[in-house]
Amino acid sequence: MPATDRPRDHAGQGAAATVAAHRTRRRLRADRARQLADLLRHQILTGVFQNGPLPHESTLATDYRASRNTVRQALDLLRAEGLVERLPGVGTVVVARKYPHGLDRLMGLAETLREHGHVTNEVRTMGPAPAPAPVADRLHVPAGADVLYIERLRRLNGLPLSLDLTYIPLDIGTALLGADLENTDVFRLLEAITGRPLGHAEITLEAVTADAHSAAVLQAPRGAAVLMLERLTHLADGRPVDLEFIRFRGDRITMSGLLHRS
Amino acid sequence: MPATDRPRDHAGQGAAATVAAHRTRRRLRADRARQLADLLRHQILTGVFQNGPLPHESTLATDYRASRNTVRQALDLLRAEGLVERLPGVGTVVVARKYPHGLDRLMGLAETLREHGHVTNEVRTMGPAPAPAPVADRLHVPAGADVLYIERLRRLNGLPLSLDLTYIPLDIGTALLGADLENTDVFRLLEAITGRPLGHAEITLEAVTADAHSAAVLQAPRGAAVLMLERLTHLADGRPVDLEFIRFRGDRITMSGLLHRS
Repeated sequence: MPATDRPRDHAGQGAAATVAAHRTRRRLRADRARQLADLLRHQILTGVFQNGPLPHESTLATDYRASRNTVRQALDLLRAEGLVERLPGVGTVVVARKYPHGLDRLMGLAETLREHGHVTNEVRTMGPAPAPAPVADRLHVPAGADVLYIERLRRLNGLPLSLDLTYIPLDIGTALLGADLENTDVFRLLEAITGRPLGHAEITLEAVTADAHSAAVLQAPRGAAVLMLERLTHLADGRPVDLEFIRFRGDRITMSGLLHRS
Repeated sequence: MPATDRPRDHAGQGAAATVAAHRTRRRLRADRARQLADLLRHQILTGVFQNGPLPHESTLATDYRASRNTVRQALDLLRAEGLVERLPGVGTVVVARKYPHGLDRLMGLAETLREHGHVTNEVRTMGPAPAPAPVADRLHVPAGADVLYIERLRRLNGLPLSLDLTYIPLDIGTALLGADLENTDVFRLLEAITGRPLGHAEITLEAVTADAHSAAVLQAPRGAAVLMLERLTHLADGRPVDLEFIRFRGDRITMSGLLHRS
């Protein structure tokens, strides 16, 4: 091995150490950027910046004791989530709004978003169909009995918010066929039809990646995150009357509530 | 325009009509596949197929009155979500498990998943740091006062589940520095340190697409959906003591709870 290789070896090790140090720095910056992005996300979601752009990068850097590069990377994360955009000459502005869906009380969409605007529902499919076993089982109807199946694309002030798949026992569902589903929550219609209040619902929330077709229906970007809600709603007397599979656009909805320790 | 163009025009119109009809069929199948996938997802999550493969495609087609193509497309959706795999000679098997995080009571991760296994926490960062204004504000400490910042990668039975960013007022946080954070929920430590029970927490849930670095830390696929939980926890006397930003792997966690109408 020629002697001249040694310095090169050293140089190689030095380069490796530099690369490692660089990787560490980059990892730390990514961690710091995530940390800052989470704090800014909260501010964005609670409307702190609704009347103007975010503070300048250098102000954010000072306020959050972060480097300019960390601030830039944090803003990149929020931009990738579709929450902010960079406008030349203006700065970083909030371009998306997430609406808070209550998690404390069982409410329909129009009901929970009442102060945020008008909910309209495009009925994509509606009609009786034989209940598959898992649906029949959960709605307490005989397997194979017809249930009402409804598929709705729901909008808030014209913007697609969720795609809802709904199963309702036919004795109640029949009365829904002539109802104003375009402008009324199913919850409200169920209470009007049965003359009884709803009682409780078992819910399950998941984050899933939208498949191409669901993304297209929701007019969301390919691969967008979806907040998936499965909900089985019962009348106050305990009868299950409404099984729903709801895909909310992740960039337009948050679920907010209060948990108690005991 | 030569007369011979006419038949071609007709042919063109015929082809367009065929394409349109084909598109309609494809859309309907995509809608039906989503509908079926949602029913199967529920069965998968509740462990119906935990002791063997899913029923054969032809059985599913009969049971759900769907075409074989719809069944295949539904299974494709579940495969894309990472829930099932196709094993030659065996069929479609469940390969992922989602663990239910309670939404009804304020609980730590180890506490809520107690029956599902052992939670361990890799502490990635821990130490005092000046509280940025939004943190100071929410934790009711003076702006710029030191708070304890902790970053943990949390695992269930060795599998990465969540990445948690935590802020705690330093008068309480100091006692956490020597605690067994690897094996104990912060909630439990907070109650032990203060000698008081936790009271309530304000929570916000979102579905977001994981950025590249968060995905890498969680060992999740690029672009994976993340269930993001922001939680401000208070002691029973109302004092805010724990601000957390938690990224759950979407393919490993569901949030389950009960909602009441009134």
